[in-house]
Amino acid sequence: MSGYFITFEGGEGSGKSTILKSAEQKLADSGFDVLTTREPGGIEIAEKIREIILNPEHTAMDARTEALLYAAARRQHLTEKVLPALSEGKIVLCDRFVDSSLAYQGFARKLGIEEVFAVNKFAIQDLMPDKTLLFDIEPIKGLNRIAANKDRERNRLDMENIQFHEDVYEAYQLLVAKFPNRIKVINADQSFEDVESEAVNYIDTILKNR
Amino acid sequence: MSGYFITFEGGEGSGKSTILKSAEQKLADSGFDVLTTREPGGIEIAEKIREIILNPEHTAMDARTEALLYAAARRQHLTEKVLPALSEGKIVLCDRFVDSSLAYQGFARKLGIEEVFAVNKFAIQDLMPDKTLLFDIEPIKGLNRIAANKDRERNRLDMENIQFHEDVYEAYQLLVAKFPNRIKVINADQSFEDVESEAVNYIDTILKNR
Repeated sequence: MSGYFITFEGGEGSGKSTILKSAEQKLADSGFDVLTTREPGGIEIAEKIREIILNPEHTAMDARTEALLYAAARRQHLTEKVLPALSEGKIVLCDRFVDSSLAYQGFARKLGIEEVFAVNKFAIQDLMPDKTLLFDIEPIKGLNRIAANKDRERNRLDMENIQFHEDVYEAYQLLVAKFPNRIKVINADQSFEDVESEAVNYIDTILKNR
Repeated sequence: MSGYFITFEGGEGSGKSTILKSAEQKLADSGFDVLTTREPGGIEIAEKIREIILNPEHTAMDARTEALLYAAARRQHLTEKVLPALSEGKIVLCDRFVDSSLAYQGFARKLGIEEVFAVNKFAIQDLMPDKTLLFDIEPIKGLNRIAANKDRERNRLDMENIQFHEDVYEAYQLLVAKFPNRIKVINADQSFEDVESEAVNYIDTILKNR
């Protein structure tokens, strides 16, 4: 496989999604063939799975059902969108991937990181990201950023209590320890320009040295 | 848990679904409090997952996506219907359960029995059936039964080639070897009355001796 698969991870308000978009343009300017995506990514089957997960009427949804549905949507998005792009040699930047399930569902929802990882291994087989950027900022600072941004719609996760976000933060630190060669910590507690610059420079360097 | 969980398994045309219904009545006549069900079992979230699996427009559905969706529907059916019935002390008879995924998707679809089992363990945790009845009949005989029954609607699985059904049959034999204490083989190549009698007598005996 000649492409390269990079995922962006982090808690709420870390700025990763905004930087993903600007990174796409900057990397394209440097001559890289880039695809940016996020699950479910316009894949019909994955979109329908996502609708079941997010339907507010589904209050009876069990946490394990939810984890299996995320893994199913991930599998379909991977086979229909990510893998074809990688096989065309593209650089794929994906906003959240397997680490999000490990942090949010495995650790913060207490299903177990290893158990959720086993299900995700079935979904992704050997396709772990080549590199993952973790946009690192203390949860309270990230949440304050969101609160200050009136244009951003609040989602279900923003409403969780602060302990939940602290747990997600702790989980990401565990993942950094577990996957030190894959996960690069980006200091997200800087100005937007500085975070963007740190992220894009890192990606640019690894792509040129691969 | 004071209830008892029994699953019915077998290839197409084994008669298990018909016998499940008559067994319910006979066991109720013997004084047992019985619930019969099959996935998705009228559980809204599970029904919606099933719709995604069976939608004929979803030709891009990957086999692993499908296996994860079956496991998700299983989890939800289990938590909303099977577990509450077992905790009320009911005898639950379920038409197909985890062994079907192992046989059809793990073996016949070649995803791997152990891999599909790992995903299903996440879905069911420790809730394996107390006993499983395998309605055993050579695939060609089962398919001929279906062909002779004009009232029975053909489904997608009936249309698979004979090799697929032979693989399912072989998989069930492997599962009998893997779970000898749980799976009871019922000779389904007899008259309906004889198969029913063998199945009901077996269940009656294990329930009285548990």
